[in-house]
Amino acid sequence: MAGNTFGNVFRLTTFGESHGPALGGIVDGCPAGLALDVAAVQAELARRRPGQSALTTSRSEADEVQWLSGLVEGAAREGQVTTGAPIGFTVANTSARPADYDHLKDTFRPSHADFTYEAKYGLRDVRGGGRASARETVSRVVAGAVARQILATLGVEVGAYVERVQDISMPLPPSFHSRDEVDAHPVRCPHPETAARMADRIADVKKAGDTVGGAIVLVARGVPAGWGEPVFDRLHADLAKAMWSLPATKSLELGSGLSGTLMCGSEHNDAFVNRGDRIGTSTNRSGGIQGGISNGEDIVLRIGFKPVATVLQPGSSVDRDGNPVELEGRGRHDPCVLPRAVPLVEAMACLVLVDHALRQRAARLTFGA
Amino acid sequence: MAGNTFGNVFRLTTFGESHGPALGGIVDGCPAGLALDVAAVQAELARRRPGQSALTTSRSEADEVQWLSGLVEGAAREGQVTTGAPIGFTVANTSARPADYDHLKDTFRPSHADFTYEAKYGLRDVRGGGRASARETVSRVVAGAVARQILATLGVEVGAYVERVQDISMPLPPSFHSRDEVDAHPVRCPHPETAARMADRIADVKKAGDTVGGAIVLVARGVPAGWGEPVFDRLHADLAKAMWSLPATKSLELGSGLSGTLMCGSEHNDAFVNRGDRIGTSTNRSGGIQGGISNGEDIVLRIGFKPVATVLQPGSSVDRDGNPVELEGRGRHDPCVLPRAVPLVEAMACLVLVDHALRQRAARLTFGA
Amino acid sequence: MAGNTFGNVFRLTTFGESHGPALGGIVDGCPAGLALDVAAVQAELARRRPGQSALTTSRSEADEVQWLSGLVEGAAREGQVTTGAPIGFTVANTSARPADYDHLKDTFRPSHADFTYEAKYGLRDVRGGGRASARETVSRVVAGAVARQILATLGVEVGAYVERVQDISMPLPPSFHSRDEVDAHPVRCPHPETAARMADRIADVKKAGDTVGGAIVLVARGVPAGWGEPVFDRLHADLAKAMWSLPATKSLELGSGLSGTLMCGSEHNDAFVNRGDRIGTSTNRSGGIQGGISNGEDIVLRIGFKPVATVLQPGSSVDRDGNPVELEGRGRHDPCVLPRAVPLVEAMACLVLVDHALRQRAARLTFGA
Amino acid sequence: MAGNTFGNVFRLTTFGESHGPALGGIVDGCPAGLALDVAAVQAELARRRPGQSALTTSRSEADEVQWLSGLVEGAAREGQVTTGAPIGFTVANTSARPADYDHLKDTFRPSHADFTYEAKYGLRDVRGGGRASARETVSRVVAGAVARQILATLGVEVGAYVERVQDISMPLPPSFHSRDEVDAHPVRCPHPETAARMADRIADVKKAGDTVGGAIVLVARGVPAGWGEPVFDRLHADLAKAMWSLPATKSLELGSGLSGTLMCGSEHNDAFVNRGDRIGTSTNRSGGIQGGISNGEDIVLRIGFKPVATVLQPGSSVDRDGNPVELEGRGRHDPCVLPRAVPLVEAMACLVLVDHALRQRAARLTFGA
Repeated sequence: MAGNTFGNVFRLTTFGESHGPALGGIVDGCPAGLALDVAAVQAELARRRPGQSALTTSRSEADEVQWLSGLVEGAAREGQVTTGAPIGFTVANTSARPADYDHLKDTFRPSHADFTYEAKYGLRDVRGGGRASARETVSRVVAGAVARQILATLGVEVGAYVERVQDISMPLPPSFHSRDEVDAHPVRCPHPETAARMADRIADVKKAGDTVGGAIVLVARGVPAGWGEPVFDRLHADLAKAMWSLPATKSLELGSGLSGTLMCGSEHNDAFVNRGDRIGTSTNRSGGIQGGISNGEDIVLRIGFKPVATVLQPGSSVDRDGNPVELEGRGRHDPCVLPRAVPLVEAMACLVLVDHALRQRAARLTFGA
Repeated sequence: MAGNTFGNVFRLTTFGESHGPALGGIVDGCPAGLALDVAAVQAELARRRPGQSALTTSRSEADEVQWLSGLVEGAAREGQVTTGAPIGFTVANTSARPADYDHLKDTFRPSHADFTYEAKYGLRDVRGGGRASARETVSRVVAGAVARQILATLGVEVGAYVERVQDISMPLPPSFHSRDEVDAHPVRCPHPETAARMADRIADVKKAGDTVGGAIVLVARGVPAGWGEPVFDRLHADLAKAMWSLPATKSLELGSGLSGTLMCGSEHNDAFVNRGDRIGTSTNRSGGIQGGISNGEDIVLRIGFKPVATVLQPGSSVDRDGNPVELEGRGRHDPCVLPRAVPLVEAMACLVLVDHALRQRAARLTFGA
Repeated sequence: MAGNTFGNVFRLTTFGESHGPALGGIVDGCPAGLALDVAAVQAELARRRPGQSALTTSRSEADEVQWLSGLVEGAAREGQVTTGAPIGFTVANTSARPADYDHLKDTFRPSHADFTYEAKYGLRDVRGGGRASARETVSRVVAGAVARQILATLGVEVGAYVERVQDISMPLPPSFHSRDEVDAHPVRCPHPETAARMADRIADVKKAGDTVGGAIVLVARGVPAGWGEPVFDRLHADLAKAMWSLPATKSLELGSGLSGTLMCGSEHNDAFVNRGDRIGTSTNRSGGIQGGISNGEDIVLRIGFKPVATVLQPGSSVDRDGNPVELEGRGRHDPCVLPRAVPLVEAMACLVLVDHALRQRAARLTFGA
Repeated sequence: MAGNTFGNVFRLTTFGESHGPALGGIVDGCPAGLALDVAAVQAELARRRPGQSALTTSRSEADEVQWLSGLVEGAAREGQVTTGAPIGFTVANTSARPADYDHLKDTFRPSHADFTYEAKYGLRDVRGGGRASARETVSRVVAGAVARQILATLGVEVGAYVERVQDISMPLPPSFHSRDEVDAHPVRCPHPETAARMADRIADVKKAGDTVGGAIVLVARGVPAGWGEPVFDRLHADLAKAMWSLPATKSLELGSGLSGTLMCGSEHNDAFVNRGDRIGTSTNRSGGIQGGISNGEDIVLRIGFKPVATVLQPGSSVDRDGNPVELEGRGRHDPCVLPRAVPLVEAMACLVLVDHALRQRAARLTFGA
């Protein structure tokens, strides 16, 4: 109810602030019997980690997961196997510099959550934005990486990439790209030429002490027809909530998205066709979801992110009493959040998909029928 | 869990299909002591009602709410007063023509939910799309109208309007428009000249047996700073889920939206200013929400809708066994869903806002402090 | 959150007061594909119905279920088949006499909920106790009867009976009794001699304008090992909540119950034995549940009920302002609630068991493994 | 859904096994602005700690809470103040001896959860019972101690004590006893003479390698009228679930309990009386709850506990394949769980009461009216 839990059957609850001792979470509802590849989880965190390239913040964190429960060694199987008990984990904050934020104690930074947290709770944790810091997403990546491994057993792959930085956009329609393609360039755009131009733009913007936004495309392939719970928990409604729970989301599109709203119905409809082993559609304007339920085609989302609010330029704001204050730009922040947001988008999609995979198990009287 | 409940504290659960005896729902968590204006609820339903203008489907329904519980007459107050008990209600289906759908028993209509419902549940209710029919939204409008009356006691107003039909768009930025302005034209665009052009377009499209989509803007004003529950139940995450739970949503934008993703951070940030009685922002690119919590400015969303799938043109599809079938276009449907979607968008926003208003009551140790 | 929903996956939400137009509910999460025997549901309601024998209140209600959604005729199967959509239903109040309660408008009846409802909500529905009336349980019986039919497909039977009325108790330990045995006597005690004595006691008490309580035993047999969700949603914790949500519960025991708390551990332990097709226990002091999870033995609960509060004897109370008032005893009520509580206890147990049966489907990575 | 979360608004999610690196939990929904006395939380844990007296297990654990989030120093107030963000905490397992359990790998101990966990999840963590160990309750005590501090700000006190060990029972009716009285003797019975006899019995039983159960009484005083959410989340239904979620509960009684089921209604009813500042009842057979809502009187529960299953006597069982096995009694366990269960019972009651205190804030349109 207080907002720090996500999911129904596969459920993540998180805690932790930017500059406290540790962040972490509990995954409750992970099915028993998953041989967890903990190194793969760690690798996922490395993709989110600050300081991984010149394009990101210089804050450096090891971000090592400490697994505290829910796993057992060699229980009938090799390696770490999930037991069905809740998986508790922590990730230490090793590079916290709380003192960096003392000057912000009475000031509200523009387009941050300083003002609204104080309005809501009557007080706030000023250290690095406290709970409002994007560092909170560490726990999501851990849980998402667990979810991804469940999806793999079901033949589902989830991939995201940077499609656009500011006005520099890939010249190709959304489609699935392998992780190798995406991670080949630190900007995480699988189109090398565009990636290079994006990187230049980000470097320019960084030099100017400014920030930029853009768009990420997410594609999930291999999702079987039948996931999603009408009418409120439509698969895309839960995906939407997931994406809008990320810190900088400004827009979301499904399938044909905005361009679809310009078409006529006769043009927009996806005709069903016989694909031999399954019924498919000849086009995919629906983005893989019809009536809130997956139809077996690729699920395609486009998420727009705003430029991050922390700029290294002076600015003006007010303090708690409404008095004007001058702000100097300082701290360690990303000029462009998108490359590091790719694993976040994937993590949230994985959480939603596993949750609905498990929910689908209750849809019919005879399971599997 | 099965997806037919929305909200946490103010919670709506709905039931009903297009061609069954009735639709309805239960509002659980409506605070006691609200003098409910049932006529106003009925008026809200009239705005959603089919057959209200030449722009909409010819199906005609009285759509009268039957209130079954949760209200008491003259208990300490005049009129119908909520008791805190769950409010049960039904709305009869009087114009159902189930036989109209017999020919679709074995066929999947393109971009409808026929195929996915059957994939999920192993069978489906073919009559008018069953639970997947947009008629399901009747119950949302009823509950939303109750929520709206609670919001009114808190000084919050929620208004939506049609900003764009296909490529015909209002020449003004999003802002609050009164219901009188919006409902002055059946197309529900508060800019008369644009409204007229939209109506022409819809008439043309209808004549061609086709359909069009567009965009609706929603503005909530008077929302106090402090509503929203980070990190997953950010106010806009719940609004997003609400909007994406509607039948034809294809895109969503908050505040500066897509255009905000093209700006630099230094340009995008909303500077805080002293408004005398409160702290406000000089611009509203954040769309009234920062860090997932309302900041006291107008909440501004733009929702894009696809053209509805039912076109009165012949088409092709497959049957359950994958054999090709020819479809004739028939039935009673809207050439453009947007005018009737305006009250739906408002209803969903009202549900989310009341829910968060009540959730905010638990945020501090001393309520009201 | 406001308390009118029960269950997680198989979820019942109810509404309705004693003297409003109708009661009803929504079952969300009923799996698709159940050929619902609606007559059997109706029969279940008849067992709860007032006026069924001289032992019960003279209020007479037809209690006919109106099915509003979630069912389809002949969809791939014969009869009414569940579609996976929410099942909405109502039961009309035909014998309501709201005016009977006018004299109680300002008075709080002893051991009723008049005072507490007003303390909570600031007002109350005086007509027959409003939402606090046991008539509310009608909706539970409907939903429980649906759940029972799902359990039947899994080989699970749920049976309850009156073990004790006041101090008149069956001379046999708890065990499963068939419905025929139980319903053979209107008091619903399967031991004929004891039943006769109970009936005499109830007749005496009724003559005196008084009421009596007692105990009901519930046995569920055929529950496979593995249902229940530690640590908070232990199977018996959810059964306990279910039983304590009934209007007159005063005590609850599992398995060996109170007598088990007097034994030593060496005596109390249930030894595991090989039953050929499964592992069982030689005794069943655990009541079929160990560590919160069913172990395949009979689940055995004993629920104690207080004497109902409405007595046909004069009494004293206070009004809203604390002034003393005299009460005359009047109204139509049961001298002993237990015979009619048998189907309630069964209904609640069925709801819990189906919910956990469906939850168990998510416990392992490979379903069915 | 998977069972490791308790509560609605004030919500605890826990993780951890007996012999893993740490246990812990997340409290989400703790209101902002509570000056948390962390030493008091630690003191609560000390009351649950093993090895605190000769009456308990010799396993010794420091049980120090590590606070990871949700608190801020000196934010507008002195000391640790809650921020409204989730409170994450861990408690290390320092005395784990996983190897002690190797011999149980293929064996199911009688009346433990070995068999049922394996039936449910397909595998189990054999080390000390894994998640099924009572050590799991450490996290409940931490969260309960936070809840207790919130209740203190509302004038509510929660106290429990051992009323009965096996057949040795206090000669006084249930009533509130101060912690000083209760903790004066390690057996936690506030009647010194009875306490001494209980201690003797426990010593005898321990010598015999056996175990005993008994009963704990819980009294909450100062609860205002109005807490509880009919019809399913009756205050006592949630208390019942809380108590039945503890590892060894066998029976539960509210107010007059079992003896109440033997009375006539005319005798059982609690007459309302004017207490000057509030309306009270002359007797308290209702146990402080009417219609599922607190009435301002003391809330009184009696919880019966079975003798713990681990006895230091040889026994017999079966292995996974149903083959008979001989068990030697060994390990470190309590001869009587009741003294250490007192803080658990209190903790669970505190969790339920705070949750309902916060839920009550949404019951009326005008809060405080």
